[in-house]
Amino acid sequence: MKRIKGGITSPRGFKAAGIHCGIKSSKKDLALIFSDKSAVTAGMFTTNQVKSAHVLLDLGKLRGKKSQAIIANSGNANACNGAAGKDNALEMSEYTAKCLDIDKQNVLVASTGIIGKPLPMSKIKKGIKDISRQLAVDGSKDAAEAILTTDTTIKEIAVDTGIKGRTKYNVKIGAIAKGSGMIAPNMATLLCFITTDACIEYEELFTALRECVNTTFNMLTVDGDMSPNDTVIIMANGTSRNKRIKFNTPEYKKFICALNYVCEYLTKKIASDGEGATKLVEVQVKGARSVKDARRAAKAVANSNLVKTALNGCDPNWGRILSSLGSARIKIKSRKIDIAINSEPIVCNSISTDFSQKKLHKLLKEKEITITINLNVGDYTSTAYTCDMSEEYVKINAHYHT
Amino acid sequence: MKRIKGGITSPRGFKAAGIHCGIKSSKKDLALIFSDKSAVTAGMFTTNQVKSAHVLLDLGKLRGKKSQAIIANSGNANACNGAAGKDNALEMSEYTAKCLDIDKQNVLVASTGIIGKPLPMSKIKKGIKDISRQLAVDGSKDAAEAILTTDTTIKEIAVDTGIKGRTKYNVKIGAIAKGSGMIAPNMATLLCFITTDACIEYEELFTALRECVNTTFNMLTVDGDMSPNDTVIIMANGTSRNKRIKFNTPEYKKFICALNYVCEYLTKKIASDGEGATKLVEVQVKGARSVKDARRAAKAVANSNLVKTALNGCDPNWGRILSSLGSARIKIKSRKIDIAINSEPIVCNSISTDFSQKKLHKLLKEKEITITINLNVGDYTSTAYTCDMSEEYVKINAHYHT
Repeated sequence: MKRIKGGITSPRGFKAAGIHCGIKSSKKDLALIFSDKSAVTAGMFTTNQVKSAHVLLDLGKLRGKKSQAIIANSGNANACNGAAGKDNALEMSEYTAKCLDIDKQNVLVASTGIIGKPLPMSKIKKGIKDISRQLAVDGSKDAAEAILTTDTTIKEIAVDTGIKGRTKYNVKIGAIAKGSGMIAPNMATLLCFITTDACIEYEELFTALRECVNTTFNMLTVDGDMSPNDTVIIMANGTSRNKRIKFNTPEYKKFICALNYVCEYLTKKIASDGEGATKLVEVQVKGARSVKDARRAAKAVANSNLVKTALNGCDPNWGRILSSLGSARIKIKSRKIDIAINSEPIVCNSISTDFSQKKLHKLLKEKEITITINLNVGDYTSTAYTCDMSEEYVKINAHYHT
Repeated sequence: MKRIKGGITSPRGFKAAGIHCGIKSSKKDLALIFSDKSAVTAGMFTTNQVKSAHVLLDLGKLRGKKSQAIIANSGNANACNGAAGKDNALEMSEYTAKCLDIDKQNVLVASTGIIGKPLPMSKIKKGIKDISRQLAVDGSKDAAEAILTTDTTIKEIAVDTGIKGRTKYNVKIGAIAKGSGMIAPNMATLLCFITTDACIEYEELFTALRECVNTTFNMLTVDGDMSPNDTVIIMANGTSRNKRIKFNTPEYKKFICALNYVCEYLTKKIASDGEGATKLVEVQVKGARSVKDARRAAKAVANSNLVKTALNGCDPNWGRILSSLGSARIKIKSRKIDIAINSEPIVCNSISTDFSQKKLHKLLKEKEITITINLNVGDYTSTAYTCDMSEEYVKINAHYHT
């Protein structure tokens, strides 16, 4: 596997576009992803009981296990809009199908932005008409830009899986994503669209996606708030004409390895671009009694406002880390915990080591912080991804709506 | 029942003092509460698995169900200090007993402040010697001041329960508390000391305390982080010589009513003085399927960073309220939820009412905000107490340690 240039249009047979249609005042706000032919498609969505109209629509459509296009808007989540929201989501997908002249069952929808405001449908319909004429093989960046909300940078990636196709090209995977706020365990206000030209059936595709999402996007937290819109969709159009990827083969392993790389890359990108974030924080938990305990421990630390504000202040306040572990509803031995920050041991058997405050303070100024925790009660591990919490986070969220 | 002037020394037979002993640079940091005679004593403590040495010591001592003095310091939590922490907690209590010439089993200890730093025992011992000579019947304010950390105001209250004593005075309850940061459901970095001159046995006293704490302090959240030090202690010295208060009597009801008033008052005081808080927020949940669901729902909203930053910005962002309910792991009907802010309906059947943005914005500028949520799926209710989240919160917590 190797990283290559590009994004969602790097795999063959995909085009994309991103435009401004008027939901936002001036930034791009409408994205379209298109596959030349119908693609095997799998998705994972928010587990929030309050789901956006778009998510509900996609859940229904994906029973067919295929799609050919995704129309996505930013600036408006189309959540909590009642029957009108449902109608608008449906209209968005059907109008897109009409403009692209494809089966309306094959168009998925996604939205992100403010909750509880009606979609400006006339602007969106005009936008769909325009964008469907602008699809391009180099349209990934524009699409990536058009799904952003408070993100400060676009997020895209492409990889060569190393799996041979029947043409001279290898199978590729490309992706774009947005994150930033309302990012909680079990996804986030997260949209991620992944494309691949692999030939693979639904069972393998969905299983691979689920495995990768569970250890990446589902371990990502910015503010502990779970959104009604979280969506990860993968489309596989088979254009590379590789031998079909089946479970328990070297190709499946290569595919999962490449997909995991893509998801982990985007997860870290989203964490480090969290609202107001100044640094990426990885919380690695070892020595837990079970995977569940390891995940809970990692998330408890990654979700602690006090840990995250301390990291913002470059302050090695390990007491807050211990304290968040103590309230994580997992089995620990409260006197057996070791903690290191960027490989520098700071706590051994739950007591401070003789670490140098000055050295630690310097380490904490780095842009990437890894907190390693050994619970010393078992053999299970897990990693959570987050960012620090800054005054800027509050500023952004106090004034987002008005 | 009526509110009266004073605090922890208002019930007869109690004295208190608060001094600066040198843990902090200049503010008061050592408090002593003393009962003329041994008092029936009950306590509730943090459920964090990481407990301070002081909490562990008190848990042991309270098996005896009585005490005569509490020595409390601020500026240092004496948590995560290993065997030395345990020794220091014990020494604090024993040295206090010596200075007061009382049974060492009868001295409880409490600490709040930074985690993981050793207590400066020589300063503390000198302080204990000094403070034990300064006990006074008007010492409540000083004691209240000496337990504060990042709190901006002292918190004290006294009430006349209306229960007749054998003297011409009624039974009184007095209390002091501190809160401010690391305040989470199931108490907080919260210290609360309650005194009463009631004649009451342990079973009744503990039951009354537990009932009141569960609906007040345990429904209080500032930042979702649970501290290793949370402590509520009540001492009843029987000095008013009332007829012993027993279960299922009008006196027990009066007692619980007065105690609840005290706890609720302090809970609100702590919430509105939360780190960086600009307003007190009550989240009232109605129509839940069970008490557990009602409590979970109220806490989910009260713990949401996004809801709390929106309130800071005076922004009626009800979508964030709905979204936090949707991820609260409770039974809801996602299209049946009503929400009002300060009695103004803003959401009906999960859709925005035609409320005036301008009016709401004005309402949200008030110092006390009540969010009323009707889940419309049952008959159970619960209230959580919190504050908004400001940039100041982050500033305080990013630079607390260094």
